[in-house]
Amino acid sequence: MKKVVVLGGGLVGGVIARDIAEDPALKVTVVDRDEQVLARLRQRAKVETRRADLADSAAVTALAAEHDFVIGCAPGFLGLGVLRAVIEAGRDCVDISFMPEDARVLDGRAREKGVTVVVDCGVAPGMSNMLLGHAEAELGALTRGLILVGGLPVQRRWPWEYGAVFSPIDVIEEYTRVARYVEHGQLVEREALTDPELHYFPGLGTLESFNTDGLRSLMDTIKAPDLKEKTMRWPGHIEKIRVLRETGFFSQTPIEVGGVSVRPLDVTAKLLFPMWKLREGEDELTVMRVEAEGLKGQAKVRYTYDLLDRTDPVTHEMSMARTTGFPATAMARLILGGQLKRPGVTPPEMLGRERPIYDAIMAALRQRNVIFTERVEELR
Amino acid sequence: MKKVVVLGGGLVGGVIARDIAEDPALKVTVVDRDEQVLARLRQRAKVETRRADLADSAAVTALAAEHDFVIGCAPGFLGLGVLRAVIEAGRDCVDISFMPEDARVLDGRAREKGVTVVVDCGVAPGMSNMLLGHAEAELGALTRGLILVGGLPVQRRWPWEYGAVFSPIDVIEEYTRVARYVEHGQLVEREALTDPELHYFPGLGTLESFNTDGLRSLMDTIKAPDLKEKTMRWPGHIEKIRVLRETGFFSQTPIEVGGVSVRPLDVTAKLLFPMWKLREGEDELTVMRVEAEGLKGQAKVRYTYDLLDRTDPVTHEMSMARTTGFPATAMARLILGGQLKRPGVTPPEMLGRERPIYDAIMAALRQRNVIFTERVEELR
Repeated sequence: MKKVVVLGGGLVGGVIARDIAEDPALKVTVVDRDEQVLARLRQRAKVETRRADLADSAAVTALAAEHDFVIGCAPGFLGLGVLRAVIEAGRDCVDISFMPEDARVLDGRAREKGVTVVVDCGVAPGMSNMLLGHAEAELGALTRGLILVGGLPVQRRWPWEYGAVFSPIDVIEEYTRVARYVEHGQLVEREALTDPELHYFPGLGTLESFNTDGLRSLMDTIKAPDLKEKTMRWPGHIEKIRVLRETGFFSQTPIEVGGVSVRPLDVTAKLLFPMWKLREGEDELTVMRVEAEGLKGQAKVRYTYDLLDRTDPVTHEMSMARTTGFPATAMARLILGGQLKRPGVTPPEMLGRERPIYDAIMAALRQRNVIFTERVEELR
Repeated sequence: MKKVVVLGGGLVGGVIARDIAEDPALKVTVVDRDEQVLARLRQRAKVETRRADLADSAAVTALAAEHDFVIGCAPGFLGLGVLRAVIEAGRDCVDISFMPEDARVLDGRAREKGVTVVVDCGVAPGMSNMLLGHAEAELGALTRGLILVGGLPVQRRWPWEYGAVFSPIDVIEEYTRVARYVEHGQLVEREALTDPELHYFPGLGTLESFNTDGLRSLMDTIKAPDLKEKTMRWPGHIEKIRVLRETGFFSQTPIEVGGVSVRPLDVTAKLLFPMWKLREGEDELTVMRVEAEGLKGQAKVRYTYDLLDRTDPVTHEMSMARTTGFPATAMARLILGGQLKRPGVTPPEMLGRERPIYDAIMAALRQRNVIFTERVEELR
């Protein structure tokens, strides 16, 4: 009986804990600072819980040391600190916290400690990385890589047609931060929300993509001369966001209004976020397309991977939580089972290159009804 | 030599004063509380100026009594008080202040005093009323009346593609106040910004109309079973405004943000109004279409009047100021010249029914390059 600790009991952490707990050979403890969150988890799954503040490194190291394996699900701003504390405890780990820093700064220390750490191990980043790594291994080298990804409510409710599964302030951050991608072998910086394009997805409809800063480690691990990640929303959302941004509603510079000083972003957040909340029972979906192009002999070949996943109609587990959580639990099982041992901090594209690992992860996802389709075509 | 006093030296009042001052038989005094406004007017036209607060009824009555004729150009919220004070002085008057009240409440007193007062004497309200009155006189009775009107910048600057010539807070008021119109003989109330429709204007392009509350006196003077006024903007403006309204950015209920209490509308006004300011030298235009349908014998007939007017390329006088001001100066000349004497408070549709007055006004506008085209067609 091995003991797994899940650090962070949010939407994704909850799905991860439930999935791990179904394995009779594993015992799960979930850590969160919010007792209400923990109480809800105890009702839904056979898990133990512990209250702790993940900002407390010593506490995290102690918790990790008590267990055999760690799954990091902290909010992004805590992610790196949590990971460092786990490595100090000498425990293997997979992490899905969307930290702003590059986790590979801890690679040396993880090697010293001999621990296997897989980071960015969700859907995007995560499966997007793994699929590009896999295609690169198949094709030798890529000439072009494209990731399109979105988490959306099934029903389009005017005007925003959006529901934030993660922190809405992080969504605004994504809408304002400069986007970086690779074009003709050069690193390109573009304003966020630029290059809107329409994409039709059978069974879903037409979505609109725009530049976001989501390549992360792929920017240097995949050597394609054209490499881009774009986020998708229902068409029109982005134009409305751009109107708000252009008019100054995302400004963090205080303005004087009726004798008081206020940041426009704070007013906007207060008005907007209640409208971005998924309502009770409101279904959402995850849609992702990964395109990878390269040469097979003389032929130009494109691999296309598609995912279209919806809120589970039985468990009501949210799609964004499932598609983010299951790659992490699949990877955790490989490490726990001894199939994967790789001291250091590894992003998923490195593992996508290894066929047995790729196949095992895809099989685990299929078992959990997260289905990627693959299409291979020759380009003329 | 007759003495005319113009009450209010804003954009429209300034054009009115300059137009009247070109008549050697008339002497013009402009009254405003802002000395800077008056100084600018003295440089542009042969006018005298007087500083006074138009909110001071006694001062207005005294000023009116010193002159032979009054033209009221006060801001809407002062309009009725100014008009009452002028009537007490026993002076004839035309008024273009867009007052929220119905000026006809002063009709009885004006009759007692024997003074001729024409109100709403601009472009819309104003010429729109006169054209419907004229068509009604031609056709006997109207089956349908429609007014489409907009004041717009010539260049469409994303995202708002709008420049407020009048007070921008009055524009928001127009975007939020319930719109009333007549449909199948019934008074209909609709939310503002409803019923968007696209209309193509040769030489201009496609505009979008929406319901606004602009019929005013027409609602009871014109007995058409279908009667509607709509405002026009460049397409897309209204959708963006609706997004702001829906999200709560026009709310006047204070919200708590960062420890202070603030009205979202105040924040919005602060961010939006600088973007709605016409820039120095930025040309604008006035577009209006009035349709009037009725029976001529057995035939269904439609009269269509079109106006497309732009910032004067020589004087740089703004189109909205010229098209609003010249109907008032034309009407003033008719009263001053004795061609029109009608004790009481009269909206322009009553005068549009009188052919000599209608012809004289249209001729005066033509002379000033404000050209209405008329099209008469038989409907099948």
